[in-house]
Amino acid sequence: MAELPDRRTAFIDWYLAVIEAAELSDKRYGVKGLNVWTPYGFRARRNLDTILIREIEATGSQPVEFPALIPANEFAKEKEHIKGFDAEVYWVTRGGLTELDVPLVLRPTSETAIYPVFALWVRSHKDLPLNVYQIVNVFRYETKTTRPFFRIREIHFFEEHTCQTDEAAATTRVRSNLEAFRRMARAMGLPYLSIRRPDWDKFPGAFYSIGFDTPVGGARTLQIGSVHHYRENFSGPYGIRYEAPDGSQRLVHQTTFGLSERLLGAIVAVHGDAKGVVFPPAVAPYEVVIVPIPHAAAGKPIPEAARELAERLRVAGRRVRLDDGEERPGAKYYHWELRGVPLRLEVGRREAESRIATSVDRLGTKGRVAFDSAAVDVAARLAEFERALLERAEAAFRDSISIARTLDELAGSDHVRLTGWCGREECGHRIETAINGALLGFPEEGLPWNVGEPTQCVACGSAEGTRWAVASRPL
Amino acid sequence: MAELPDRRTAFIDWYLAVIEAAELSDKRYGVKGLNVWTPYGFRARRNLDTILIREIEATGSQPVEFPALIPANEFAKEKEHIKGFDAEVYWVTRGGLTELDVPLVLRPTSETAIYPVFALWVRSHKDLPLNVYQIVNVFRYETKTTRPFFRIREIHFFEEHTCQTDEAAATTRVRSNLEAFRRMARAMGLPYLSIRRPDWDKFPGAFYSIGFDTPVGGARTLQIGSVHHYRENFSGPYGIRYEAPDGSQRLVHQTTFGLSERLLGAIVAVHGDAKGVVFPPAVAPYEVVIVPIPHAAAGKPIPEAARELAERLRVAGRRVRLDDGEERPGAKYYHWELRGVPLRLEVGRREAESRIATSVDRLGTKGRVAFDSAAVDVAARLAEFERALLERAEAAFRDSISIARTLDELAGSDHVRLTGWCGREECGHRIETAINGALLGFPEEGLPWNVGEPTQCVACGSAEGTRWAVASRPL
Repeated sequence: MAELPDRRTAFIDWYLAVIEAAELSDKRYGVKGLNVWTPYGFRARRNLDTILIREIEATGSQPVEFPALIPANEFAKEKEHIKGFDAEVYWVTRGGLTELDVPLVLRPTSETAIYPVFALWVRSHKDLPLNVYQIVNVFRYETKTTRPFFRIREIHFFEEHTCQTDEAAATTRVRSNLEAFRRMARAMGLPYLSIRRPDWDKFPGAFYSIGFDTPVGGARTLQIGSVHHYRENFSGPYGIRYEAPDGSQRLVHQTTFGLSERLLGAIVAVHGDAKGVVFPPAVAPYEVVIVPIPHAAAGKPIPEAARELAERLRVAGRRVRLDDGEERPGAKYYHWELRGVPLRLEVGRREAESRIATSVDRLGTKGRVAFDSAAVDVAARLAEFERALLERAEAAFRDSISIARTLDELAGSDHVRLTGWCGREECGHRIETAINGALLGFPEEGLPWNVGEPTQCVACGSAEGTRWAVASRPL
Repeated sequence: MAELPDRRTAFIDWYLAVIEAAELSDKRYGVKGLNVWTPYGFRARRNLDTILIREIEATGSQPVEFPALIPANEFAKEKEHIKGFDAEVYWVTRGGLTELDVPLVLRPTSETAIYPVFALWVRSHKDLPLNVYQIVNVFRYETKTTRPFFRIREIHFFEEHTCQTDEAAATTRVRSNLEAFRRMARAMGLPYLSIRRPDWDKFPGAFYSIGFDTPVGGARTLQIGSVHHYRENFSGPYGIRYEAPDGSQRLVHQTTFGLSERLLGAIVAVHGDAKGVVFPPAVAPYEVVIVPIPHAAAGKPIPEAARELAERLRVAGRRVRLDDGEERPGAKYYHWELRGVPLRLEVGRREAESRIATSVDRLGTKGRVAFDSAAVDVAARLAEFERALLERAEAAFRDSISIARTLDELAGSDHVRLTGWCGREECGHRIETAINGALLGFPEEGLPWNVGEPTQCVACGSAEGTRWAVASRPL
């Protein structure tokens, strides 16, 4: 097996090599940027979806699915929105052997598919709030370099769309989404900052946008999700009105919450190491792999013990894989470490006799799993591993962010930077030029450390309105 | 509430009205044949998918997902296949503001997306069998009248694709699929016949096709799935070869297994009645609805008891809905009967005091559910209901099929017909003309009743090669 490129000095090479070697995705499909979800990657994605579904449904959101094809006239109704997307949508112009009367857009996001129907669903204040979500694929004719999970042409996508009575109710929904994402990200072990985007970088058609950004080494960040407040920007053009208790007709205020397969890319990027992928248990295709260690004198009892252990864990609902192939144990260790399985259980002669397996988690911590309390012991080992993984990620997160007090400190930065910004666009662009990247905006929920307040804008020196902002080089 | 049309005399009207009234699908999207999955319908679909995933993964099939867009050149490689589909595919011809060099087909089915990649995945006999499946949406530019779930332009689709060493191994996989479908259909309470299609009606590119057909009233049948043996018909053009143990290069033999949202349409059509939808428990969005019966003298204990019961069932993993709205109990009964909830639990004054709820299942059978053994009692009531529902469906299934011994008996038939057929195409077409429908073919796994053997072909009178065949008017 070839060694992986160095993660620190050649991050993207490492990332691409890990995904290929761990068989998370196959990019040898005949169209650039359209990749194949291989079984191992698909299982991770399915577990990710399970987390999203659990957390969003706990907030009362209901699952729906709208069509993938959007008529051109509906797509064009909100002007900012179409301006933001028309350079990157796929057009369906022909059905069978005939040209279509109305061309169809392959959804790049679903506002324009959903909102004409919302206008039918919403009649009265009793229909509100209307909170629905869908998990579907969206399509973007990406012209930049594509990367598995990060930037791709068919994107596995989560989108919640809601209608609220007024601006304040929509703000409450935004808060609820921020809290839901905190629970989702925790299950994935992903630290992040929620950052309100500058006006020039908000979602096309939004009143404001909040992005979730996670550092992925050096000055790089990856946006792993976003929440938007639309006010009446879409409900106006799409006519989504309700009768208020006083009998008046009012436009709803809307919000959306978007996530994608980037979360899987972030998990690879944030947790991965020189040995390969590291999966948090909730996402891992297999939480546990069991490796029998053959011993000539012991014979049959070893594979039998390994099977018994696997069966006990399977019955307890664990995603477990028994690797009873012919390779040497060392080759199996390598194989499953590369693929990020959280916990390995070794069953050799001693283990088969004592009925206590040796456990080694993906961070190298050893432990014991007794056959007769296997479900409980494995749960404990996985919980320890999950905590240690989160701590490691949080330490790396803190180390990757530092303060820049001058424009010079932004230039050539190998950290994500906190810097003073007065909020003016002109200064924002100077910051972006200095770091050769983006001003992500002001943190929305505070910072996880106490760094006081900045005294002046790094660009203009003014103290007025100046707060900490985050600047980085987004992937 | 308007009454539903009569199911016997106006089946399609009844079907459309039930789907609309039960809020399973919304057809008011701006494009004909593209419907919206509303929350209630989506939940039923999700439960259906869970059944399919459980049963197919139990046979060792692995989940994957291939892109929705297929390059024109790959799409065109197998001649029969493209001939079968080119009048009904959507073409993507433009990306952003530019014409695409290679137009893309929106997958109508995924052979031509998957097989170029199979050619990369399969190298040696050790890579075989290769059994993978995906659950995705497919697209067909349908020109006939569209109907929710039955005939639609964006179809929720299950497709297994496999590669086997030789024809016999592929036949074994076909058998395994037939058994898997038997388990799936049982969970849905759907009786059916598996029927090998006449050559003129097989899947484009198949060596042979087996359809699963369920009667839906009168002479109508609905094809609810199919399994195909492709032999080397696709592996040839796509170059899917492996090195055999003797060192020779051989083409794989392939099979596919396809299912779709038609299963949900079949569940509505087969189990539904004058009151609306009837869901088998495994598919029901809610297995149980709890209705409190207010009583002036009893006061608070009733809603509290209803909540306790709901919570007990929720903890036990049941999909339960507490209907604590303001409508009268009778209106709630009507609402949830229309939506096909298998079991209703009523909690009034007597029930709150005795801690024993009254249960009424969707077929009208009454029973009791004690609060303190609610999980066990509900499981028992649901199992009884499931059995009764299956028995009702099987009785209707038997009643809907009868023997036709003359072409006259086929004409104007109000039954699905068993009839003697010698296997010749000319006679097959005479049968189709007589019944004004289709000859579905010879039953593949025998008939569920002992009807002996037919003595002569209904068309030509010959005894040679004559067996029972099934003729119907497919929806």
